[in-house]
Amino acid sequence: MRNYKVGVAGATGAVGREMIKMLERLDFPVGEIRLLASSRSAGKKLVFKGREIEVEELSPEWIAANDLDMVIMSAGGSISEKYAPIFRDKKVYVIDNSSAWRMDKDVPLVVPEINSAALSKDKHIIANPNCSTIQMVHALAPLHRKALIKRIIAVTFQAVSGAGQKAIDELEKETARIVESGFTEKKLPGGDFPPFPRQIAFNCIPQIDVFMENAFTKEEMKMVNETKKILDPRIDISVTCVRVPVFRGHSEAVNVELSEELSVSEARKLLEKEPGIKVIDDPASLKYPTALDADGELETFVGRIRKDESRANCLWMWIVSDNLLKGAALNAVQIAQKLIDII
Amino acid sequence: MRNYKVGVAGATGAVGREMIKMLERLDFPVGEIRLLASSRSAGKKLVFKGREIEVEELSPEWIAANDLDMVIMSAGGSISEKYAPIFRDKKVYVIDNSSAWRMDKDVPLVVPEINSAALSKDKHIIANPNCSTIQMVHALAPLHRKALIKRIIAVTFQAVSGAGQKAIDELEKETARIVESGFTEKKLPGGDFPPFPRQIAFNCIPQIDVFMENAFTKEEMKMVNETKKILDPRIDISVTCVRVPVFRGHSEAVNVELSEELSVSEARKLLEKEPGIKVIDDPASLKYPTALDADGELETFVGRIRKDESRANCLWMWIVSDNLLKGAALNAVQIAQKLIDII
Repeated sequence: MRNYKVGVAGATGAVGREMIKMLERLDFPVGEIRLLASSRSAGKKLVFKGREIEVEELSPEWIAANDLDMVIMSAGGSISEKYAPIFRDKKVYVIDNSSAWRMDKDVPLVVPEINSAALSKDKHIIANPNCSTIQMVHALAPLHRKALIKRIIAVTFQAVSGAGQKAIDELEKETARIVESGFTEKKLPGGDFPPFPRQIAFNCIPQIDVFMENAFTKEEMKMVNETKKILDPRIDISVTCVRVPVFRGHSEAVNVELSEELSVSEARKLLEKEPGIKVIDDPASLKYPTALDADGELETFVGRIRKDESRANCLWMWIVSDNLLKGAALNAVQIAQKLIDII
Repeated sequence: MRNYKVGVAGATGAVGREMIKMLERLDFPVGEIRLLASSRSAGKKLVFKGREIEVEELSPEWIAANDLDMVIMSAGGSISEKYAPIFRDKKVYVIDNSSAWRMDKDVPLVVPEINSAALSKDKHIIANPNCSTIQMVHALAPLHRKALIKRIIAVTFQAVSGAGQKAIDELEKETARIVESGFTEKKLPGGDFPPFPRQIAFNCIPQIDVFMENAFTKEEMKMVNETKKILDPRIDISVTCVRVPVFRGHSEAVNVELSEELSVSEARKLLEKEPGIKVIDDPASLKYPTALDADGELETFVGRIRKDESRANCLWMWIVSDNLLKGAALNAVQIAQKLIDII
């Protein structure tokens, strides 16, 4: 089996660090690994398979001087816009976690369990979908195959790690301050955006990313547009995205209208057969997934599958996954695994 | 103006204490106040209008020996089942915050801005709706009057105070322990139910109250059944209720399908005219309500009003209110205010 020269760009970020761990945990055939980041992080050392690796500064010169087979990027939209084409011009495959390329019609947007067929040898830039999109479409795809989805209404409960290390630090800082006050001071002076437009400790913020002209947030429109691109453009979908004071693990309450009757037990069976899905759904013994159950796990968890009794062919589901793993780093490495089958 | 002899039963609980404060804050014409609770809490002292009042034990004998015009109860379902009829038989009006009487066809279930006409001189037991129901129907009623609601899909983000003082203590205890570990120990050994079936600190629990046979929780079915009773039995409604690590203030993401077109600006105008509603909705300046904004406030707050672009006549709203005030104590005292107009 061939080994590959793999780069990780944005290696020191919350997702970048998980990407390195996922390459290890999935035993991806890495011949050589190069860790790349901005000048600010260059020189830091990270560990891959027990060996310290120095982080190098990503630059056009670095790309010109070095050979890679593929680079997994999680360095933000503007860095991706600049560097992905430079890698592509050197025939390096780029698996990009930013939103920069996702809606480009020439760029495959891939959740491997659903549409790895969109990958092709000549498409060097591949987009990793948004975290909240991945887990939702992962759980909905088996239902869609069986009984075409007509409409999705989704409400998300998104962990702060989706906004990066600064957001994790902010939740810790705010919470510690409130605990130190003996819970007497529960409303703190307002925060800065980013990471958060409001206090996140002991609060829920109905805004993730910036607002668009239609009064939806960019995060909400990512879920709408990416779901159509990955699953089916005919699906009607509308979303409310909410940030909650959880460190890791996005939860989603999803109401899905199918084009034909599907019983709860049929839906459960379809989900249980789906690779990467784990059904935890036994109300009688209070079993359902929560964000804490998903933290550090590779699966997309589904529970609270039940009939919306108010309308025909509608089901509710509660979908939970680790936003840094299946929602980001794991899905990216799974794309790399599919890619080496065809290149 | 006449003054009334008012009892508060369950006076020492999280809602009971707020009821006493609301009687003060709304300047309800109290001639005499009597505070009632279980034997465990009898003898405690609480303050009403600067005066210490001793809590007395609620018993059939106490009711037989004392005269009241009305009693506001928040003492749990089984206490209400037992005592409300005893008060009623003495012609004492009972405004009950438990779920015991809400679906009784002879008991008015009242949100004063919507259906105070359901009150009548000869109906001595009056039910205060569930916290998450009150704020939702309060915000939906003006839309329903204008353009009949056909369907509601709601997902809630409910504060721990809805489960009482023990639940508040549990969130504080879990959070303090995680902060004290320097955030290294983020998953604690499982909690007891009640108050919570899982760790609530830095987690979201898709279960409030017990599960029913249809796999919905009792809290979800309260919202369904009470909304139909208060607003309109023809409305199709389905709900997912989720507990979040917030102390006070329930938030709700609500997708509502109307029977005719209603623009966002029309909806906003209707809401701005509605007593007790405050619209905070200016995405351009990042304005929308959050639980922390509602904490301690009397209003039901509405923001993020926008068209669900995937379907005709559908609007999204984000509805927030203090679950102990409009969701409980305030609404109960507002019922008392309406009641004295007719008795």
